[in-house]
Amino acid sequence: MDQNDMDITNMEPPPSPKPSFVRNANLATMKEDYLYHLALDTEHHDLKDMFKDVRFVCFGGSPSRMKAFAFYMVDELKYKMVAGQTLENISRGSDRYVLYKVGPVLSVSHGMGIPSLSILIHEILKLLNHAGCDPGEVIFFRLGTSGGLGLEPGTVVISEAAVDGLLRPYMEVAILGLINQFPAFLCPMLNNELLDVAKSIGCETVLGKTMCTYDFYEGQGRLDGAFCDFTEEDKMNFLKRAHGKGIANIEMESLCFAAMCHRAGVKSAVLCVTLLDRLKGDQISTPHDVMEEWQQRPQRIMSAFIKKKLGISD
Amino acid sequence: MDQNDMDITNMEPPPSPKPSFVRNANLATMKEDYLYHLALDTEHHDLKDMFKDVRFVCFGGSPSRMKAFAFYMVDELKYKMVAGQTLENISRGSDRYVLYKVGPVLSVSHGMGIPSLSILIHEILKLLNHAGCDPGEVIFFRLGTSGGLGLEPGTVVISEAAVDGLLRPYMEVAILGLINQFPAFLCPMLNNELLDVAKSIGCETVLGKTMCTYDFYEGQGRLDGAFCDFTEEDKMNFLKRAHGKGIANIEMESLCFAAMCHRAGVKSAVLCVTLLDRLKGDQISTPHDVMEEWQQRPQRIMSAFIKKKLGISD
Repeated sequence: MDQNDMDITNMEPPPSPKPSFVRNANLATMKEDYLYHLALDTEHHDLKDMFKDVRFVCFGGSPSRMKAFAFYMVDELKYKMVAGQTLENISRGSDRYVLYKVGPVLSVSHGMGIPSLSILIHEILKLLNHAGCDPGEVIFFRLGTSGGLGLEPGTVVISEAAVDGLLRPYMEVAILGLINQFPAFLCPMLNNELLDVAKSIGCETVLGKTMCTYDFYEGQGRLDGAFCDFTEEDKMNFLKRAHGKGIANIEMESLCFAAMCHRAGVKSAVLCVTLLDRLKGDQISTPHDVMEEWQQRPQRIMSAFIKKKLGISD
Repeated sequence: MDQNDMDITNMEPPPSPKPSFVRNANLATMKEDYLYHLALDTEHHDLKDMFKDVRFVCFGGSPSRMKAFAFYMVDELKYKMVAGQTLENISRGSDRYVLYKVGPVLSVSHGMGIPSLSILIHEILKLLNHAGCDPGEVIFFRLGTSGGLGLEPGTVVISEAAVDGLLRPYMEVAILGLINQFPAFLCPMLNNELLDVAKSIGCETVLGKTMCTYDFYEGQGRLDGAFCDFTEEDKMNFLKRAHGKGIANIEMESLCFAAMCHRAGVKSAVLCVTLLDRLKGDQISTPHDVMEEWQQRPQRIMSAFIKKKLGISD
């Protein structure tokens, strides 16, 4: 990159605010709170009793993957279940998200795209606030999939920062007719710790910037959508320029994830495996079992990190 | 509304383009096409054989609601199943969306928000193109839920037009670094036909404009999100102004739905039931069974419309 090139993605992160799950004076006036999309509420559920020990909240797009992650954590943490019991989807009263709890670990699916994730983060933040968790102690993780740029498929990218499709490091939200911009920074110290853990378990992992788009096809420069009015050359020029600015992978949620966590002052990290190299193609046709193994890689890093924090050895 | 007020939502719709499921010269060069999020592809599935008779594609957010709609259509259309068989989720190889087929009717879930819907519409358009359906004959419907403005909860709104959170009647997509604007117009003739059908079955239904946001909490002026820096008065001023501009309801997908259908030249309509009156509150706490009945109202209109088109009497 040209050293004179003013790169907004290299700006110093603004200082993190004091951790607080909620920043909303109106909440104090509410008698009950219905977390509608989680099918939980303060009237029928003792949220403090259910969730007060949560320390690690792991988000991922796919409900079946996040269910599998919860059961994987049962094994990894040697988590003792009551005889005759199994994990159940705590949000089974809704079919928007799945939510599983394994001791201090929540495993929750967020669907695809920023709006779907945004609803969930609002409700998870309120949930942890009702539960009386310490916002300075809880860490949020997104374990996802992505398209890579110049990386061997299967490589895990830990996001240094999230940027939008125009490389702007903030999420824009129209609120009461005004556009608000929320900076999407992630925590370098946490990232380095995760990178060390990934290396210790032999998982090919890099740090890089993540482009987050609102559209999978045209928004990510794919040639294979229903609509496309650009050429292969246009696409490659764009992806190469993005790559030259430090973009390592492309997905659809990191911007919102980083921005909302930063706004709450909650530590967070985004770990996405790359399913293909977008500099080489658009279509995902890798065999299912290979892709399954790749998708477990962020989970394996996550497990090793959590076990280290909890002092659990293999 | 002030008669001198230039209201962009009252602009004449641009003429619809000639119907075509796809507008992408690159597709002709592809040997195979993997509709990744539907778990269907041209190599392993005979898409023409499976889908050539499709005429009505019904989209809705919730997987369980769209599964229920498919079984409801079996009853309504007196659709004869082979003895010992039942409907199955055609996209069961993926857990992103569910897809059911009942004769000429597809019932498909789109998740929450524009990005999730956008991926699906790209892949459904390509699917119908592979199947050789006639783009001038297929109609797309979104059957959804929404917050109403000044309407009795349970009222169905048929969208005259979709606008974003700043009342702009187009969807913006960043494509290779440029912002593209796709107009989000719907078909007045189809809407009037649907309104007549709704009246004929005694379902409280109105025509109105629909505001489509990228965020459920702050983006829709809710006071009960994790974050909120505006007051009840700010919120009410905004919602009343939107209501004064003809906004009847607020949801999270119509803008993309209308824009992508308009771009393909495919006829489309959006029918959303209102779950609450946002001029009176934010929280959704209506009993589950009441809400279930409300959510069936767009489905009942849909069924009556499809039966009319197919010449099926009760």
